[in-house]
Amino acid sequence: MDTYLNLSLEAFSSFKQTSPNDKAAFLEEMANQIDAARDQLIPTASKESNLPQGRITGELGRTLGQIRLFAQLVKEGSWVEATIDHADPNRSPLPKPDIRRMLRPLGPVLVFGASNFPLAFSTAGGDTVSALASGCPVIYKAHPAHPETSRIVSEAIKVAIRKSNLPKGVFQHVEGGIETGQELANHPKIQAIAFTGSFRGGKALFDTAAQRDNPIPVYAEMGSINPIFTFETKLNNNLKELAAAYVGSLTLGVGQFCTNPGLIFIPEKLSQTFGDAVLDNLKEVSAAPMLHEGIGKAYYEMLKSLESADEIQWVQKADAEDIKLGSPAFVKIKGSDWLKDEAFQEEIFGPYGMMVTYRDREELQKLTQVLKGQLTCTVWGEDNELESSRNLIREIEEKCGRILFKGVPTGVEVGFAMQHGGPFPSTTDSRSTSVGVHAIKRFARPVAFQDMPGSLLPAELAEGNPMGIWRTVDGNWQK
Amino acid sequence: MDTYLNLSLEAFSSFKQTSPNDKAAFLEEMANQIDAARDQLIPTASKESNLPQGRITGELGRTLGQIRLFAQLVKEGSWVEATIDHADPNRSPLPKPDIRRMLRPLGPVLVFGASNFPLAFSTAGGDTVSALASGCPVIYKAHPAHPETSRIVSEAIKVAIRKSNLPKGVFQHVEGGIETGQELANHPKIQAIAFTGSFRGGKALFDTAAQRDNPIPVYAEMGSINPIFTFETKLNNNLKELAAAYVGSLTLGVGQFCTNPGLIFIPEKLSQTFGDAVLDNLKEVSAAPMLHEGIGKAYYEMLKSLESADEIQWVQKADAEDIKLGSPAFVKIKGSDWLKDEAFQEEIFGPYGMMVTYRDREELQKLTQVLKGQLTCTVWGEDNELESSRNLIREIEEKCGRILFKGVPTGVEVGFAMQHGGPFPSTTDSRSTSVGVHAIKRFARPVAFQDMPGSLLPAELAEGNPMGIWRTVDGNWQK
Repeated sequence: MDTYLNLSLEAFSSFKQTSPNDKAAFLEEMANQIDAARDQLIPTASKESNLPQGRITGELGRTLGQIRLFAQLVKEGSWVEATIDHADPNRSPLPKPDIRRMLRPLGPVLVFGASNFPLAFSTAGGDTVSALASGCPVIYKAHPAHPETSRIVSEAIKVAIRKSNLPKGVFQHVEGGIETGQELANHPKIQAIAFTGSFRGGKALFDTAAQRDNPIPVYAEMGSINPIFTFETKLNNNLKELAAAYVGSLTLGVGQFCTNPGLIFIPEKLSQTFGDAVLDNLKEVSAAPMLHEGIGKAYYEMLKSLESADEIQWVQKADAEDIKLGSPAFVKIKGSDWLKDEAFQEEIFGPYGMMVTYRDREELQKLTQVLKGQLTCTVWGEDNELESSRNLIREIEEKCGRILFKGVPTGVEVGFAMQHGGPFPSTTDSRSTSVGVHAIKRFARPVAFQDMPGSLLPAELAEGNPMGIWRTVDGNWQK
Repeated sequence: MDTYLNLSLEAFSSFKQTSPNDKAAFLEEMANQIDAARDQLIPTASKESNLPQGRITGELGRTLGQIRLFAQLVKEGSWVEATIDHADPNRSPLPKPDIRRMLRPLGPVLVFGASNFPLAFSTAGGDTVSALASGCPVIYKAHPAHPETSRIVSEAIKVAIRKSNLPKGVFQHVEGGIETGQELANHPKIQAIAFTGSFRGGKALFDTAAQRDNPIPVYAEMGSINPIFTFETKLNNNLKELAAAYVGSLTLGVGQFCTNPGLIFIPEKLSQTFGDAVLDNLKEVSAAPMLHEGIGKAYYEMLKSLESADEIQWVQKADAEDIKLGSPAFVKIKGSDWLKDEAFQEEIFGPYGMMVTYRDREELQKLTQVLKGQLTCTVWGEDNELESSRNLIREIEEKCGRILFKGVPTGVEVGFAMQHGGPFPSTTDSRSTSVGVHAIKRFARPVAFQDMPGSLLPAELAEGNPMGIWRTVDGNWQK
C-alpha cells in the first residue's frame, strides 16, 4: 500500500498548490474525456450493472454535469470560506494580530464506489470529484460489480491528468477485495474515507478509521428506508395519483436507490383502499434484473425472514422464481405491531415496501419517535393538515437530512441546496452531504495564517482580493 | 442519566425553535448575570485554580466578550448558511423542485470544562456558549478542580434562563467523577461532545462515542507542543528579544496553556547563544503554584522520566522541592537524536521547553515531517528566509491548525478568522475550531427542505429574506 500512498503524497505536495483555474480546467478535461468514451462506456456499464442503457445514459449526463458543477465551484472560488481579521496595532492592552483563515485540502482520500450507480457514485462520482475539487489526491477502490466500467472511467481520468500536466498520483485506481479496502483504510497517510453502500460495509470502515492510531473522518452513506408520512385528507383527495407515484418511486431502478421509500405511514381507515391502489399499480410492474446475483439473493432471503412474522400481512408477495430478477413485494402492518420489533425498520434493498397503519396523530407521533436516522422523509398533506402538524414536522425533521412535501424521494438534485446525508445509521456523519456543492467541504479543514507576509499568503487571502471571491473581512461579507 | 436527558430533550423541542433575537437576548442576559457575580467569582476562581486574580479578571473579560460575540453572531443570523435553489417547473425531462437548506441544531450536547481556564473554557466557556448559540441544550460536566467557581457560573446561567422564559433543561450542571462523564457520553440521546483537557481524557471520550450504537461527533482539544521554527538570520538579528518572547510564552500561566511552545527548532550554530539567552530569562522567572497538585505531580514525574535519556542536555533543571510550584525547565537535544524516539514529542504540561537543534534546512524538513498534529506552529524568519522556505512552510501548515509568523502562540484571539483545532492528536476533529465564531458549526447539521409550504419554512429560508441575512440563492450570494 505504501507505493500508492507515496505516489499520492508526492502528488499532493503540488496538487494542493494548483491554482483554482488549473484545477477547474482539469475537472472539465476529465468530463470531456469521460464523455469521449461514452460509446464504449454506456454498453459496458449497462451490461455490468443490468441497468438499461437509457438509465445509464441519464446517469452519464448527471455524472458529467456534476463534474462540471464542481469545476465551476472551484473556479468561482468562494467555497474556501476566506475570512480576514485585520490587525490593530493600537489595541490595548495587547496589539491585535492579523489573522486569515481558509479551508485547505486534507490530503490523500480513499473512495469506495457504489454498485447501484456505476457512474454517478463510482469512479468519477461525487465523492471522487468533490475530493479532487478540494485539492486532495484520490485513491479509488473499484467496485467489483462493474470492473470494466471502472477501468474505462479511470483511463479517461488519467488522460485528463496527463493533458493537464498534473502528477499521476492525483488519481489512482485500485482493484481488489474487502481486504485491500481495509488495508488502504488503515494506512496512516490516508486522511479521509468516502463510501456509498451497505450498513455493514460502511460501519466496518468507520470502525477501522476510529481505531487507527490517528483516527480520520469517514463519510459513509449506508442505507435508509425513507419513510413517507401521509395525512388523511390529502391521501383521500389524491389516492390513485399518490399510490401510482409511490409505486413508481418504490420500483424505480428495481428499488435499488438509497432514497427508495421502503416505508409508508397510512391512516388506518384508508389502508385498505391505498393497499388496493398500490396493488393495481404493482401489477403493471414486471420483475427486472437486479444489479448482481448477490443483491438478488439477499433481497429474497430478507423477504423470506419476514414470512414468519404473524404481524405482517402480505399485500403482494414477490415472485422468487428467478433470483436474478427483482420482483416487487408490499406488506402491511399495524403501527402498534411495527413498534414491537426494530427489525421491521431494517432496509431490504430492492423493490420492497412496508405500509404501517396509524390510528391517529398521536400514534403517528409515537411511530416517528422510534424512527432511526434517514436520508429523507416525505410528508404528504393538504396545507391545513401540514399547518396543524408543525410539531410532528419538527420531529420528522430531526430524523432526516432532507424533508420533502411534494413528490417522491428518489431523484436527488445536484445543486447548491441539496443535502444528501442524514443522522446515523443513514450516514456516519450527518454534518456532511455526499451530493451537491457542499460535498467539497468534507475533504478540507480550516487553517489560520497569523501575521503571514503578504507575498506568502494564498491568493484567496491576499489583500485587495485578487481572486474576487466572497470573503468575511472584519466580520463583514464582501466581494 | 435519563432524568438529565429527558429534561434536555424537553428543552430542545422548544429551544430549537427559539428566534435568533430571543436566543441572542438570552446570551446577553447570561453575560450580564455572570458579570454581576464577578465580586464573588474572581476570588473563588483564583483560589480554586491558584491563578492570580489579575489573570482571572482578564479571563472573565474574555469569557463575557465571547458570550456577547456569539449573541451578535446569532442576532445577525447568516451563520446558518441558508441556501435556496428555486423550482423550475418547465425543466425537462423532469421539473426541478424547490430546495432550501440551512444548519439546524444537533440536540443535547455534553460539555467537559478545562482546569486551566476555569472561566473561558469551562462552565460558560466557548463550548457551552457556541452549543447554546446553535440552539442545542447543554449538559455541563463540572471540572472537579474548580467546583465552586462552576456552581457560581451555573447559577448565573440558570437565572438568565429563568429571566428569558426558557425551559430549565437548556443548561444543566452535573457534578461527578470520570464515571459520570462516561455514563453521560454513552447516553443514546447525547448528540455531540465537547472537551478540553488531556490526551487520555479526550481519547477515552472519542473511543466511547465511536463505539456507541449511534456514534456521535467528539470535539476534543487534547494537547499540543506548538513548535517554533527559527531561521538563522532572523534569530541572529533578534536573539535577545526572541529568547525573551519565548520564555515569556513558555512560562505564561506557569506553562499551563494549550498553545504553550514546548518545542523550539534552533540552528545548531546558534544553539549555545540562544540557550544562554533563554537561561538568562528563565532566571527571572520564579516557580509559581500550578493549577492543582495532580498537575504538579505529573509535571515532575514526566521531567524525571527524561533524566535517563543520554541524548538530552539540561540547560535548566526544574527545582522539584515543592511539587505544588511549577519551576521552569529547559533542555537541548540534537535533531538526529530527537528523531530517535517519539516520546520526545510528548507534551509535558507545565513550564517545560525543548530546544531541538538542526544543521541545515534539509534536516529541519526531516524533523518537520515526523511532527504530530499541533494546534499551532510558529515560524520566525526574515522575509527573505521565509521566501526561500515556501515548501517547508507548506509542510508546516499540514501539521497545524494555525501558523504564526510573528509573536508567540499563547494568546488565542476570539474572532472570525481564528482556528483553534489542528490535526490529530492535538484535536479529534481538525475540521472544527473551539475558539472563534466558527465553533458554532460543530453543533449543527444541514437540513434540506424540499417543496415546503412557505408558511412552514424557517424565517431564514423564507422568500423575500425577512431576516435580512446573507444567503446563496440559485448559486449567488446575496442579502
